[in-house]
Amino acid sequence: MDQVMTRKPHEMLAAALSQELEAVNALIRTRMASKHAPRIPEVTAHLVEAGGKRLRPMLTLAAARLCGYEGDHHLKLAATVEFIHTATLLHDDVVDESAQRRGRPTANLLWDNKSSVLVGDYLFARSFQLMVETESLRVLDILANASATIAEGEVLQMTAASNLKTDEDVYLQVVRGKTAALFSAATEIGGVIAGAAEEQVKALFDYGDALGIAFQIADDLLDYQGDAKATGKNVGDDFRERKLTLPVIKAVAQATDEERAFWTRTIEKGKQQDGDLEQALALMAKYKTLEATREDAFGWAAKARTALEVLPDNEIRSMLSDLADYVVSRLN
Amino acid sequence: MDQVMTRKPHEMLAAALSQELEAVNALIRTRMASKHAPRIPEVTAHLVEAGGKRLRPMLTLAAARLCGYEGDHHLKLAATVEFIHTATLLHDDVVDESAQRRGRPTANLLWDNKSSVLVGDYLFARSFQLMVETESLRVLDILANASATIAEGEVLQMTAASNLKTDEDVYLQVVRGKTAALFSAATEIGGVIAGAAEEQVKALFDYGDALGIAFQIADDLLDYQGDAKATGKNVGDDFRERKLTLPVIKAVAQATDEERAFWTRTIEKGKQQDGDLEQALALMAKYKTLEATREDAFGWAAKARTALEVLPDNEIRSMLSDLADYVVSRLN
Repeated sequence: MDQVMTRKPHEMLAAALSQELEAVNALIRTRMASKHAPRIPEVTAHLVEAGGKRLRPMLTLAAARLCGYEGDHHLKLAATVEFIHTATLLHDDVVDESAQRRGRPTANLLWDNKSSVLVGDYLFARSFQLMVETESLRVLDILANASATIAEGEVLQMTAASNLKTDEDVYLQVVRGKTAALFSAATEIGGVIAGAAEEQVKALFDYGDALGIAFQIADDLLDYQGDAKATGKNVGDDFRERKLTLPVIKAVAQATDEERAFWTRTIEKGKQQDGDLEQALALMAKYKTLEATREDAFGWAAKARTALEVLPDNEIRSMLSDLADYVVSRLN
Repeated sequence: MDQVMTRKPHEMLAAALSQELEAVNALIRTRMASKHAPRIPEVTAHLVEAGGKRLRPMLTLAAARLCGYEGDHHLKLAATVEFIHTATLLHDDVVDESAQRRGRPTANLLWDNKSSVLVGDYLFARSFQLMVETESLRVLDILANASATIAEGEVLQMTAASNLKTDEDVYLQVVRGKTAALFSAATEIGGVIAGAAEEQVKALFDYGDALGIAFQIADDLLDYQGDAKATGKNVGDDFRERKLTLPVIKAVAQATDEERAFWTRTIEKGKQQDGDLEQALALMAKYKTLEATREDAFGWAAKARTALEVLPDNEIRSMLSDLADYVVSRLN
């Protein structure tokens, strides 16, 4: 996709699905209300209305539409997915002690950690009620497994992030927990609710999984080579926070004894000093790990596109295909 | 129940259900394991193995057995209920910044808040997988609604605890969220999985609801009149923590202007000084609110016993009936 795009693929999807997205937004507003605890909509509105791109609910709507679904359970599932995502963000902000999210102060800063933990739990419960209403045991099974992968990935990240033994397999598990598990569940349940053929349901899972992985690898790569103005992050934040991501993991795997001592000191022990980030970047350059990471991201994007081939060839499918290109286009 | 009991009703139940409880414990151990994130069993074992009485899973087993169930889905549901309970405790400890639970340091003190939040989420996800395996949409619906009541109750407690507008209705909602919703779901799903008649399922719900409310009211009352040695709590902890519970709510409802000013200062504003607890106890004595609260607890225990009447009259039923007496017997 080398041509200049006037409109980004997720904006095209939002336009094509605008009526359904409106209905999902209405459902989200209704279902986050609490008669008894007014703090709940205060906290969630702060986050849900804060201009997220609604990427995950859009994936569910797109998958259902792509498979010719004509009912309205996909609206509930789209809201379910957004609630799970929002709950995860609330809990992440407590865990990371973040002060900003989507350019605004986080809920735990505006209110307190308590509100973030408990309102996150409330949104999980609400998402659970919504999905039960679709009366599809298979959908429930998929979302239960995705929830476990997400939670396990988060715990794994916490313990593996600064451990030099973390290899590419562990990294991939963390990425699936952090991002890809909800993407793949979002697309898969869209196919399931539409009663799509097994081959198509599997393809939708594969698409979401590869899209999520490409997205997260691109994010991790941009931490080392991004334009701070465009990404809103400073180069090397992950290094300073001692988070092992793919570019470093690839450099650690090839390190000499002396280089390994450098990674042990800076990442495992966290004893960082001036010039360390430059040294880390030099080691990544030596082993061309930024290029290799970029290749991996493009490989996953290609996998996502290929997965779509067994699905009906229509407008929505091309937008999903473009979306796979788009998530890595930031790396050009 | 005025006779001296050699064995407590929950110990009788544990003996009667010992084989099933063993199977539930084995299931809990298997399902809390995580191949990828060893921190998870570390944290949960600390709590799950810490000698909880397994009251909630026992209620599910007892309800299923009472209704003549012969399958094994009730084991999964019992484990589900214990996982939900444990997850709630982990999140509560973060919210309350507790340092002790069941006489041991809390997980958030031993590890960190992150572990408590994320491992709690993991246990919720695991409980979700277990309940889906029973393939009962009705069970899923009950547990989804209970989860929402629990989460809403917790948020409500956070905002209502120090607000003098909190009346007995709000108190009851908080108590349902904190305790009774999981008790009533535990007994109800036991009946549902056994295919019991509607009237019996409803009775099991009512029993669990009333038992949970009696239990929590007794707990709140003991905070003001308990024997510190027996309860492990100091008299007046709730007052010092500015938590409105039933004995105070009843005193606030009858307060003169001057007394109201006292409650506003000590509970709403939290400006407490020496002698305030004594003054609070004197106001509760003036309006006999400890006695009235005790009456309420006994009333709910009686309601729990009465609910059992439509259920088969056997050994398990008498133990459940005795259990209702037992939870308030601490008030004698």
